[in-house]
Amino acid sequence: MNNSSVLIRPESLRQFSTQVFEFFGVPAEDAVLAADVLAYSDEHGIDSHGIARLKTYFDLLRSKRINPVPRISIVREKGSVATIDGDNGLGLVVGPKCMLTAMERAKVFGSGWVSVCNTNHYGAAGYYPVMALQQNLIGLSMTNTTAGVAPFNGSEKMLGTNPVAIAFPGFREPPVIIDLASSAVSYGKVEIAQRKGEAMPDGWCIDREGHPTNDPTEMIEGGALLPLGSIAEGSGHKGYCLAVMVDILSAVLSGANWGPYAIPFAIHVAPSSKLVGKGIGHFFGALDIEGFRDPVEFKKEVDEWVATMRRTKAQPGKPPVLIPGDPEREAYRLRMEEGIPVDRSVFASLQSIAAYIGIELPVS
Amino acid sequence: MNNSSVLIRPESLRQFSTQVFEFFGVPAEDAVLAADVLAYSDEHGIDSHGIARLKTYFDLLRSKRINPVPRISIVREKGSVATIDGDNGLGLVVGPKCMLTAMERAKVFGSGWVSVCNTNHYGAAGYYPVMALQQNLIGLSMTNTTAGVAPFNGSEKMLGTNPVAIAFPGFREPPVIIDLASSAVSYGKVEIAQRKGEAMPDGWCIDREGHPTNDPTEMIEGGALLPLGSIAEGSGHKGYCLAVMVDILSAVLSGANWGPYAIPFAIHVAPSSKLVGKGIGHFFGALDIEGFRDPVEFKKEVDEWVATMRRTKAQPGKPPVLIPGDPEREAYRLRMEEGIPVDRSVFASLQSIAAYIGIELPVS
Repeated sequence: MNNSSVLIRPESLRQFSTQVFEFFGVPAEDAVLAADVLAYSDEHGIDSHGIARLKTYFDLLRSKRINPVPRISIVREKGSVATIDGDNGLGLVVGPKCMLTAMERAKVFGSGWVSVCNTNHYGAAGYYPVMALQQNLIGLSMTNTTAGVAPFNGSEKMLGTNPVAIAFPGFREPPVIIDLASSAVSYGKVEIAQRKGEAMPDGWCIDREGHPTNDPTEMIEGGALLPLGSIAEGSGHKGYCLAVMVDILSAVLSGANWGPYAIPFAIHVAPSSKLVGKGIGHFFGALDIEGFRDPVEFKKEVDEWVATMRRTKAQPGKPPVLIPGDPEREAYRLRMEEGIPVDRSVFASLQSIAAYIGIELPVS
Repeated sequence: MNNSSVLIRPESLRQFSTQVFEFFGVPAEDAVLAADVLAYSDEHGIDSHGIARLKTYFDLLRSKRINPVPRISIVREKGSVATIDGDNGLGLVVGPKCMLTAMERAKVFGSGWVSVCNTNHYGAAGYYPVMALQQNLIGLSMTNTTAGVAPFNGSEKMLGTNPVAIAFPGFREPPVIIDLASSAVSYGKVEIAQRKGEAMPDGWCIDREGHPTNDPTEMIEGGALLPLGSIAEGSGHKGYCLAVMVDILSAVLSGANWGPYAIPFAIHVAPSSKLVGKGIGHFFGALDIEGFRDPVEFKKEVDEWVATMRRTKAQPGKPPVLIPGDPEREAYRLRMEEGIPVDRSVFASLQSIAAYIGIELPVS
């Protein structure tokens, strides 16, 4: 514990989240699942997507903007692919169930792909591909999110931070786990700069008129994030293209709200007055390694790939070359031992939830 | 025609390429196909991947490093997925044939995915997804390439510029066509800066010791390109992650040479003394829209998506927001009317090819 955070045992946080979901009528099994998705972020150092978001799920459940008992249904399908309607359930419940559908189809057809509409914020994108690894599958997930990013050369928020995540199993080495937002940075980093009163690096944001800005407040008050690559010289059109890919696969293909119409994940932001579909959208995929190559051979080759990349000479004064997933594994090792550092403002939000529901606050 | 380039009719370039491939024993139908892939680049303004590369294909065919009559075969499969061995054929022939396999499987199983080993440089990644559009399929392609890019924080070339391409059909609007290399910029841009004697922007390259450099010669003589995002502040780890995804799906999954072992697409660069697989690797995919949503409904929604993005207010002093594929469409319109501007040094390479083979040089 230090001045800015409170250390809490991982198990206590899980129990607390589960109780909160159950309070609103989420079935016990679904509540445990939703808590597991949140815990994945907290336990792996992805502080923006774990318990810090519980207050927003709480707000949306309390105001009945999320359905605690969704009837998730397949609306269209063909062999390895399907569209699923999440019935406005928690993305934390709809997401894992749809990923399982993709995995089941991969076991039958060699691959499985599910586009999902009528769903909500699903936590960290990286949770889903990891589900696939134990079954010799390569897993993939994407989601569109509340518009916060300007298209390349644009001055308005038209797309979300739309992440892509994919994971590959190793044999003795840990898996390669990729999880990247298609924006230059996350909104969370802008908030941190504002809290610290610091200027932001070039290339992160524009202000409400579309001018580059280093002032986090200017972005927060009507500006926008820039896509990965930021500007013409950095190939900002490429980050824009990635966000487009995610938006169309997740939302246009499934019949969800796309682009600027994506339902905001926030209680104080009204949804757009125009809707073009149902909820937000996710896209899940699984590839059966068995259909391409002997899985043991593949995993041993991933091991060699990992070992080779690790041997790369680092740039002078820079940390060593990491394998995607390494930072999260290091955080996991530390946090499962020492506890999860919960920001004081997040802790205060948990206090308000505990008081409302009448349950114990999680403490170490 | 101006001082630096020669204008040539698109049809003349196609015929010339076809003749060159046929000269080395490539069957007539395959030669036309390979020429079509090159022509796609020239006709759409992707100058780095069209006729400018013919000399390298020529060199590799002449030195028997590429097999003109490959027996392309499925080595493993399961429903919607397969691994194909390209028998060291031209990527320009192996690529389209493997993309067709992915498309055929998508029509049966809802999606089709093909990982390819023992192949060579396949031209512009964007050619392949476009093949899928007429059949109500979403198309996707990736390939690993000669190592030229440093992993995030690394100082050595360990990965290729590994592109990702995906395309979505519109109804009345043109398709959304995404084709992006996972590096900050292409090697071609570094060469152009060197030719012009210009300094490069920050974030493109490092020198042989791993220090940032703005001098194109320092990159060319033993340095490396940086991944999309470039540095820590720009999220350079994300471009690295994209390159990793492409490398594993294209090369590790298929049994091709991955990472630093990818076979160089150049006559004067010896392949690595260590091989970890066969040739380089591609990855192709197709999703049947029919399996997710009524295709006409989907395409009309893509139209609305396109119209919405086009209405985005531009940043002050910046060009309007474009749809992925717009720049290539504009180039196509101009070039099919005025001809293809062929760089004088490229034209000289065509002269040498024509002299060797004893055929007519293409002229307007």
